[in-house]
Amino acid sequence: MFEARLLNGSLWKKIIESIKDVVEDANWECSGSGISLQGMDSSHVALVSLHLKSDAFDPYRCDRNISLGLSSTNLSKILKCSSNDDSVIIRTSEASDNVSFIFESSNSEKVSQFDLKLMNIDSEHLGIPDMEYDSIVKMPSNEFQRICRDLSLLGESVQIACTKDGVQFTSSGSIGSGKISLRPNITAENLDDTVNIELNEAVLLTFALRYLNFFTKATSLAPRVILSFKTEHPLVVEYQIQDIGYLKFYLAPKIEDDDTKQTTTPD
Amino acid sequence: MFEARLLNGSLWKKIIESIKDVVEDANWECSGSGISLQGMDSSHVALVSLHLKSDAFDPYRCDRNISLGLSSTNLSKILKCSSNDDSVIIRTSEASDNVSFIFESSNSEKVSQFDLKLMNIDSEHLGIPDMEYDSIVKMPSNEFQRICRDLSLLGESVQIACTKDGVQFTSSGSIGSGKISLRPNITAENLDDTVNIELNEAVLLTFALRYLNFFTKATSLAPRVILSFKTEHPLVVEYQIQDIGYLKFYLAPKIEDDDTKQTTTPD
Amino acid sequence: MFEARLLNGSLWKKIIESIKDVVEDANWECSGSGISLQGMDSSHVALVSLHLKSDAFDPYRCDRNISLGLSSTNLSKILKCSSNDDSVIIRTSEASDNVSFIFESSNSEKVSQFDLKLMNIDSEHLGIPDMEYDSIVKMPSNEFQRICRDLSLLGESVQIACTKDGVQFTSSGSIGSGKISLRPNITAENLDDTVNIELNEAVLLTFALRYLNFFTKATSLAPRVILSFKTEHPLVVEYQIQDIGYLKFYLAPKIEDDDTKQTTTPD
Repeated sequence: MFEARLLNGSLWKKIIESIKDVVEDANWECSGSGISLQGMDSSHVALVSLHLKSDAFDPYRCDRNISLGLSSTNLSKILKCSSNDDSVIIRTSEASDNVSFIFESSNSEKVSQFDLKLMNIDSEHLGIPDMEYDSIVKMPSNEFQRICRDLSLLGESVQIACTKDGVQFTSSGSIGSGKISLRPNITAENLDDTVNIELNEAVLLTFALRYLNFFTKATSLAPRVILSFKTEHPLVVEYQIQDIGYLKFYLAPKIEDDDTKQTTTPD
Repeated sequence: MFEARLLNGSLWKKIIESIKDVVEDANWECSGSGISLQGMDSSHVALVSLHLKSDAFDPYRCDRNISLGLSSTNLSKILKCSSNDDSVIIRTSEASDNVSFIFESSNSEKVSQFDLKLMNIDSEHLGIPDMEYDSIVKMPSNEFQRICRDLSLLGESVQIACTKDGVQFTSSGSIGSGKISLRPNITAENLDDTVNIELNEAVLLTFALRYLNFFTKATSLAPRVILSFKTEHPLVVEYQIQDIGYLKFYLAPKIEDDDTKQTTTPD
Repeated sequence: MFEARLLNGSLWKKIIESIKDVVEDANWECSGSGISLQGMDSSHVALVSLHLKSDAFDPYRCDRNISLGLSSTNLSKILKCSSNDDSVIIRTSEASDNVSFIFESSNSEKVSQFDLKLMNIDSEHLGIPDMEYDSIVKMPSNEFQRICRDLSLLGESVQIACTKDGVQFTSSGSIGSGKISLRPNITAENLDDTVNIELNEAVLLTFALRYLNFFTKATSLAPRVILSFKTEHPLVVEYQIQDIGYLKFYLAPKIEDDDTKQTTTPD
């Protein structure tokens, strides 16, 4: 028996919309500690890692570890049938080849139950090593979304440079080039608007905007995004889900061709 | 000479948008008692019946019964040219092969006149017998719209069960199944939010969601919808248009195949 | 060296969106008096003329007259990357084959620089003679936009008649005909809502709605539009850009075929 009830059901909707462009089919791993998901996009360039703590749910009952293989597209369809103030119960049993999503309106007068068929999905769990990053940027999530979207008008990739003076996003293409510079500001009136840069070493890395634009679908989940950079290592784009979990995206940097001036080494 | 002026012209817009997906070409029957329309969809599965009382209009002048054959698509185009607070005059004469729609702004400084060509449309008026229904459900119109739209994500038809405990909407398809249950509540703070069930006999009937989704375009016309069920008879989906008329849709139930467990007989 | 900074950068966005459907590639002529643009649409039916005074900008520095050949589509892409409260600096030098657009957020913590490649565009500057018009109509710009859009549902051209009684817009097509009449009103509560008609001579002229609909993209630039009519001469559709400049569109009247009853002579 597995059962997990989330009072604020609209969070499920936002989570699924955040990951469905990256991972189509994924195993939702349910255990005593909570619900986790890890998955790569079809071209194996980006990785999603999600964790929701068991104490986010009330009740939370997980008699035995269970893996729920689900299509993100179908999950998204089902969750669109919930209202924003519905509570959401996920329920299944070890023997079942279905999982139920139950939406209850706040006045309990409308109850919707949707049963999805479980799928068998091959997946290997990648261990993601803890590491020291060269540079960590914390900034408003909607500002990061805006920058990625704007630079997509110019080119396919963005070069990100972190120095003590700030962070620079650069892109170029056939119509011209664009460079967006953010200065660290720690005195904004609203704490969510500050740009913080923790710098061990300056970095200069290039990433595919296509994936960053997928990741920023998670903007509605959190007011802040945390970008962790390390030369020759994947970028981590992290959204904290209130105090109940996190959603992290990993994206390997692009290696520039020899005949371009840009390199992935910091300047 | 026929002339009918409606002060609240935006009502015409809502009415046309409500019926145009079901009936493309229809005769608008004008008589001393008011304006009526009856029409079937092109596959002869659904029927629309509209009536607006003559005293909804001021002035209302109908010297002789007259039938105005009009394309709903063209009517919709014309009415989109009216502003929401315009009054709308419909005017024609027996001899004319045109009908005029005249929109007057509330300050009378803008007057728009659109003339549509009348069409000859073959139609037979169906007598709809009064009957005793097994079960009548009165519920918020937007809730019914939402349920029909949500279940369309799963399957093509919805099975509706009315019992003394409430009304259940069930649909299933390749990705899974959904069941939405409403309990009768007669104590909601807002009367428009109540769900009332008058039950002579329990019913279990199946309908094509495609048509129900067409019908619920009328949601903006009325806060409540009345669903009248009778085994082996068409469902009536009724919207009352303020106190000046009604819009009713009729839809025959689907007969399930022998190899399915569901039947159209109540359980 | 050329540099011009506009505090209210969103104005640039509106200007480009207003002209880009009419002129694709155009030379922006920068001189001591300000920035001007003139261009025809690809079928040489409509002309755009824009002028922004130098004192709209602060600073404004133009060492030598310079002509910036730019694609409206690319300009539009770049300007969409500015926020509404950004200031916009345009900067280039005589030797450069680039022009820079620099957007600064109001708190100066975000700076974006976009460099566009300059193009060589053949163009001849048309002298537009001053003339006495037969009739000048000043009206709310959104009302003019609405009328052009509404009549497009019926036909491809609109016949505009100005008389002492008002201005009439007429269109007809296969589904019927429409006629929208505005009476001059000089007593509206809000001055922007008045319709003023200066009449030297009545006019009756026909124009292609396709172009008028392009022109009315400028509606967001100004609450009022000024229409200047003269028989056998182009219509002028003028939007004043605050007190810093203007955007004018010119459109030649359609000459009706002999076999139609309508003519371009006033009745």
